Amino acid sequence: MPYVNIKITDEGVTSEQKQALIKGSTQLLVDVLNKKPATTFVVIEEVNTDNWGIGFDQVTKLRQIDNK
Amino acid sequence: MPYVNIKITDEGVTSEQKQALIKGSTQLLVDVLNKKPATTFVVIEEVNTDNWGIGFDQVTKLRQIDNK
Amino acid sequence: MPYVNIKITDEGVTSEQKQALIKGSTQLLVDVLNKKPATTFVVIEEVNTDNWGIGFDQVTKLRQIDNK
Amino acid sequence: MPYVNIKITDEGVTSEQKQALIKGSTQLLVDVLNKKPATTFVVIEEVNTDNWGIGFDQVTKLRQIDNK
Amino acid sequence: MPYVNIKITDEGVTSEQKQALIKGSTQLLVDVLNKKPATTFVVIEEVNTDNWGIGFDQVTKLRQIDNK
Amino acid sequence: MPYVNIKITDEGVTSEQKQALIKGSTQLLVDVLNKKPATTFVVIEEVNTDNWGIGFDQVTKLRQIDNK
Repeated sequence: MPYVNIKITDEGVTSEQKQALIKGSTQLLVDVLNKKPATTFVVIEEVNTDNWGIGFDQVTKLRQIDNK
Repeated sequence: MPYVNIKITDEGVTSEQKQALIKGSTQLLVDVLNKKPATTFVVIEEVNTDNWGIGFDQVTKLRQIDNK
Repeated sequence: MPYVNIKITDEGVTSEQKQALIKGSTQLLVDVLNKKPATTFVVIEEVNTDNWGIGFDQVTKLRQIDNK
Repeated sequence: MPYVNIKITDEGVTSEQKQALIKGSTQLLVDVLNKKPATTFVVIEEVNTDNWGIGFDQVTKLRQIDNK
Repeated sequence: MPYVNIKITDEGVTSEQKQALIKGSTQLLVDVLNKKPATTFVVIEEVNTDNWGIGFDQVTKLRQIDNK
Repeated sequence: MPYVNIKITDEGVTSEQKQALIKGSTQLLVDVLNKKPATTFVVIEEVNTDNWGIGFDQVTKLRQIDNK
């Protein structure tokens, strides 16, 4: 009965990538803990880069520095 | 001082249904644990069906199978 | 496929009360949104009163004031 | 390695205010627990006032009463 | 900068299994979204079977039925 | 009506430090967004170092390396 919550920044994640995250997380729970896929939930939350901070700064700002 | 977080898929939930979830959850905490409504929070999060997985698959795909 | 997370203070909640919260939350999702109980998760988290704050103070301190 | 999640209603929070929340939360973890900013995450989630309940009611309704 | 939260029941999960969940989740984020491991957090939360409900019942009760 | 959730490793955090986190977080919401302390919740969750991963490894292991 596992519940997996994945929070990532909303930077153009495709539906195929989301499907890959769901499949991979579920398989991991099966492999490591023998959990049943039918009752394994995976919920992906996409967070705006303005709303995610690390090292005092918004990710929005960090991306601008990366791109310079 | 309870905090209730309800995550559901974003499939046309109306404001009235949200109000019913808030009212019902709060009443449940009052009935079972005698909590004060004034400090009972209910937060509903609606998740895109692409972002919710169960049994290896996105809910989007499961809905397509259901409708066939 | 709902996921309900209930956070409450760890002040002697009994197993029967937890069962009542699980039953009531699940029934609420059935009644309001016609969700399937078989894929409705309810997770209760009990939080130490030292770790829960409201109005600047720990609940531990608020309980001491209540009991005076 | 702290993770701070701030949930607030989505009532016109500006990017500057989000930056202030990120900066302030990170500094708090540095001051109180000597945590490293480079591995301190702050994630802000903005919730629609229809989806947040307190005292049995949606915040949307409470705001209407406040404004009367 | 992903944050992965895995909630599972507290049924004797070993430190090695936790390590495997952390490694596997982090690798998944690298493989699918090219995220940096150095800023990928995985937090595992173990929940008492009395506190986890599915299909109206506590997992504690479901386990007793499974073992009959 | 903000809700702040702080997850940290369970490495001897004192009640006074928890109080400082609660006070500081609440004050931050007052200062930045003019929120009311009476309806500002702060919930601190302490996570075992075996259950927290970063950069593929458990924090338990990282602490052993730090101490060498």
